[in-house]
Amino acid sequence: MSLQSEIFEQPERLAHLLQAQQDTVEKIVIAIRKSEIKYVFLAARGTSDNAGRYANYLWGALNKLPLALATPSLFTYYNQPPKLDEALVVGISQSGQSPDIVSVLEEGHLQGCLTLAITNEPDSPLARAADLVLDIQAGEEKAVAATKTYTNELMAIAMISAALSGSKTHKRDLEKVSGWAEKVLKQDEPIARLAERYRYMRQCVVLGRGFNYCTAFEWALKLKELTYTVAEPYSSADFQHGPIAMVEGGFPIMAVSPRGKVQDSMLEMLGRLRGDHRAELVVISDDKRALSLAQSPIQLPDGMPEWLTPIVGIIPAQLFSYDLTKAKGLDPEKPRTIWKVTETH
Amino acid sequence: MSLQSEIFEQPERLAHLLQAQQDTVEKIVIAIRKSEIKYVFLAARGTSDNAGRYANYLWGALNKLPLALATPSLFTYYNQPPKLDEALVVGISQSGQSPDIVSVLEEGHLQGCLTLAITNEPDSPLARAADLVLDIQAGEEKAVAATKTYTNELMAIAMISAALSGSKTHKRDLEKVSGWAEKVLKQDEPIARLAERYRYMRQCVVLGRGFNYCTAFEWALKLKELTYTVAEPYSSADFQHGPIAMVEGGFPIMAVSPRGKVQDSMLEMLGRLRGDHRAELVVISDDKRALSLAQSPIQLPDGMPEWLTPIVGIIPAQLFSYDLTKAKGLDPEKPRTIWKVTETH
Repeated sequence: MSLQSEIFEQPERLAHLLQAQQDTVEKIVIAIRKSEIKYVFLAARGTSDNAGRYANYLWGALNKLPLALATPSLFTYYNQPPKLDEALVVGISQSGQSPDIVSVLEEGHLQGCLTLAITNEPDSPLARAADLVLDIQAGEEKAVAATKTYTNELMAIAMISAALSGSKTHKRDLEKVSGWAEKVLKQDEPIARLAERYRYMRQCVVLGRGFNYCTAFEWALKLKELTYTVAEPYSSADFQHGPIAMVEGGFPIMAVSPRGKVQDSMLEMLGRLRGDHRAELVVISDDKRALSLAQSPIQLPDGMPEWLTPIVGIIPAQLFSYDLTKAKGLDPEKPRTIWKVTETH
Repeated sequence: MSLQSEIFEQPERLAHLLQAQQDTVEKIVIAIRKSEIKYVFLAARGTSDNAGRYANYLWGALNKLPLALATPSLFTYYNQPPKLDEALVVGISQSGQSPDIVSVLEEGHLQGCLTLAITNEPDSPLARAADLVLDIQAGEEKAVAATKTYTNELMAIAMISAALSGSKTHKRDLEKVSGWAEKVLKQDEPIARLAERYRYMRQCVVLGRGFNYCTAFEWALKLKELTYTVAEPYSSADFQHGPIAMVEGGFPIMAVSPRGKVQDSMLEMLGRLRGDHRAELVVISDDKRALSLAQSPIQLPDGMPEWLTPIVGIIPAQLFSYDLTKAKGLDPEKPRTIWKVTETH
């Protein structure tokens, strides 16, 4: 039962990280300020890469930091890394083991860049290769599908953002995340009932935009890992540039669509999908307009600021993926052919 | 019949671009050298975003330039663009019309960055917003699914790379691309026969790595736009971090796998998919080992250097997508619900 219990551990783990690593985050931010970096160069794979997508939007919007997602094969197979002048080089990995991610940090160090590891394993090769280490303190994650390490990676990224901006409102908002997470977990029963309807779903699309682009990717990844559904994530903008052609009547679309600056564009897309394409919609939102368009609405707590919705918004998606796995008669604890630590070069 | 004729126009259009824009490319490269940029910040959507993925690997590996793919919504909906000090800001768009891509260039200009537009429409809003314009001269593209504008965007990116590196070998190799493209088009009949087998395919995965990561994305996009197949692109490394769990016996995997530095890792993955997962493989390659693993092998010309394989390697994938569209009884000239110019904000 590790997957289910790890999903339910999240409120506690989020609160713990926030308290335990406040000082480390302040030290990291002092080092970043000193080094006068021009942009962030970030390496990650799988779930941690989705955390990187959150950093891309969050650090860009709130901290004015441009972010480049690394292409690790340039550092390994090609052995032709780019010149990383004045970059902050960041590696995110739960296990801290994947050799390609470690290579990017080692190269950053060689080139004289400031390097930061965000990991659940402070004694890992990734942590040893970094100048700065942020231990996400999620506790051991036994389930193959990552849940609490993902939300704690997001929390770590949000803590760095709030410390960089120095905003007191942001720091206060961080303290509410654990409570919102707890609230959303109370919907486990309605979500389990609603997942039944997708027992025979073989393929779907998952939409999210802006800060929740990462949530679309992470929801899709959980569906693929656990339920073997072909689930493809998109921003609603990219989806319009071609892939929307796939959608016929009844085609299932999952959407994470909380209130915020991109919500009008999401509502327009959801309205078009429901109205013109007669699509089937599963919508996670705190916005009645979005929920009313869905055959399967999932309510988020009220009052969350948009920048923190990804940390809370993924939790009902984790529950949905877990419940759908059981509805399909599969074992959520033992997904076939994948392992906890994947070492890629 | 515009789609088919535009696919077959490509050798001529590639040769034309190479000749017509040599001087413009030299001027662009002089301007780039003068401005002492630290990294590239690139904005694009759809097919052009896939061309951006080529630039990410090519300019990284051969020109040591790190590249960040822009998140346009930060410039539009959020109105919180990052600080782009010492970045070269690049927009790629066939039509030059999409307001979000134009916004990124306008912001770059406001911040004092050097800006470059790569477009088929030198009088478009994107071109007007840029300091430097590279007209890809693909001629009017009538089909909704982009083909010749994609390969000419790749050629434009390759020309900039060769001019930046000053390598004579690379410049000579560019002249051979048109001939290789012509050669690969001669396989249109065997490809049409082979596409029949996938008449009832509803979903698939498309794999590529390194320089051909872009080819996987573009092949998947053609399959989605034209055949309404749920086709999800992956690097073989990311695929291992979870999504491989989806693959059961007979699951169709498309792969672009030419000789080169990532080929050993691709061969290992293809071997595992065929051997352990009993997957169905369609493989585009110039490597007998890769072709021999496929139920449906598609041969590339011999002797291509790896960095240019994406320009040639996408062409049989375009043919395959076109033929599969016809095999499915659909109209390749009129994909449903998408339009030639998509304006996203």
